[in-house]
Amino acid sequence: MLRFPEPIKDLIDYFDRLPGIGPKTAEKLVFYLLKQPKEYLKGFSEALQILHDTIQYCSTCMNFSQTEKCEICANKERDTGTICIVAENHDLAAIEHSGEYNGVYHVLGGTLNPLEGITPELLHIPQLLSRLEKTRVNEIIFAFNSDYEGEATVLYLQKLLKDKGINITRLAQGLPMGSVVEYADEVTLAKAIKGRTEI
Amino acid sequence: MLRFPEPIKDLIDYFDRLPGIGPKTAEKLVFYLLKQPKEYLKGFSEALQILHDTIQYCSTCMNFSQTEKCEICANKERDTGTICIVAENHDLAAIEHSGEYNGVYHVLGGTLNPLEGITPELLHIPQLLSRLEKTRVNEIIFAFNSDYEGEATVLYLQKLLKDKGINITRLAQGLPMGSVVEYADEVTLAKAIKGRTEI
Repeated sequence: MLRFPEPIKDLIDYFDRLPGIGPKTAEKLVFYLLKQPKEYLKGFSEALQILHDTIQYCSTCMNFSQTEKCEICANKERDTGTICIVAENHDLAAIEHSGEYNGVYHVLGGTLNPLEGITPELLHIPQLLSRLEKTRVNEIIFAFNSDYEGEATVLYLQKLLKDKGINITRLAQGLPMGSVVEYADEVTLAKAIKGRTEI
Repeated sequence: MLRFPEPIKDLIDYFDRLPGIGPKTAEKLVFYLLKQPKEYLKGFSEALQILHDTIQYCSTCMNFSQTEKCEICANKERDTGTICIVAENHDLAAIEHSGEYNGVYHVLGGTLNPLEGITPELLHIPQLLSRLEKTRVNEIIFAFNSDYEGEATVLYLQKLLKDKGINITRLAQGLPMGSVVEYADEVTLAKAIKGRTEI
């Protein structure tokens, strides 16, 4: 059985630990890197090194940021009266990419999942509550995945926020772009009918 | 449109350049890394950094190695009279994992592909020839992919080596393990019939 030289094995192990990358892909990536110029590896290595040193949580919305306030919270043209609550930073990124939203965000850092030990205390909920005390907010939009954890988080937060006089909404549920009615699942179709809009 | 903080963007770009990893996956990996302990990122970064500093080509077979001679060439129990010629290091790794081979290797660094500019001079063929002058070799096994480039390389090397009195073989072509005769493609089936073995 072949034993790779230690430095190759080590790097394969690091790639192997990444989500969605198995041992075979990790091997392929390391062999690719071995053929790249030294500068590329040096830059890659440095980019990894400085990630933790330079990135922190935004003190307002818990988004990743280089500064105390993230770019979105610091932007005076954003509507601070509308807060979109997302589970993770990549959800925030997806909504920003849509170009449709001009409010601000609050990143919870996950969704409720008691079975896996993710209880309300582990999410950025206290930060949300103290934020609501300091700022006047008209609308809160829930933007979670359509799964059990997402629904549980919606229910929990809904209860927590109901007496605050804030308009609470959620992302529309229905047919995705490019979908075929015939092949849509029953739940999606039911939600699309229930949430039908006037044209 | 969201602009990620510079250090996040940089690292996404580095991952994005890896084979089989697109911008979406690169984003996912970086967000995962942001949630990992600092020690993991430090170790990952160092593993990348030292890869080029510690890994070199084995002077005999052009395999990756930490020392001047790789572990296989340095192993006195391996049969140096049998050389298996492979295109890339990952092919060598695959054959070693099979546990069936006890000879040594020669890594060409690719297969002939004139259209993409990969001509014989770019492969480790001179190293192979000078190796054959120095060592007595009984058998050379070609272990290339079953594609046009692999076949072209076999033809080229066959011509180059034919007057050297070395027994030249190639990996058996036929049905892979677990395959179904009914669904095998015609070429594979034809090769399997032609190369049938006595039992």
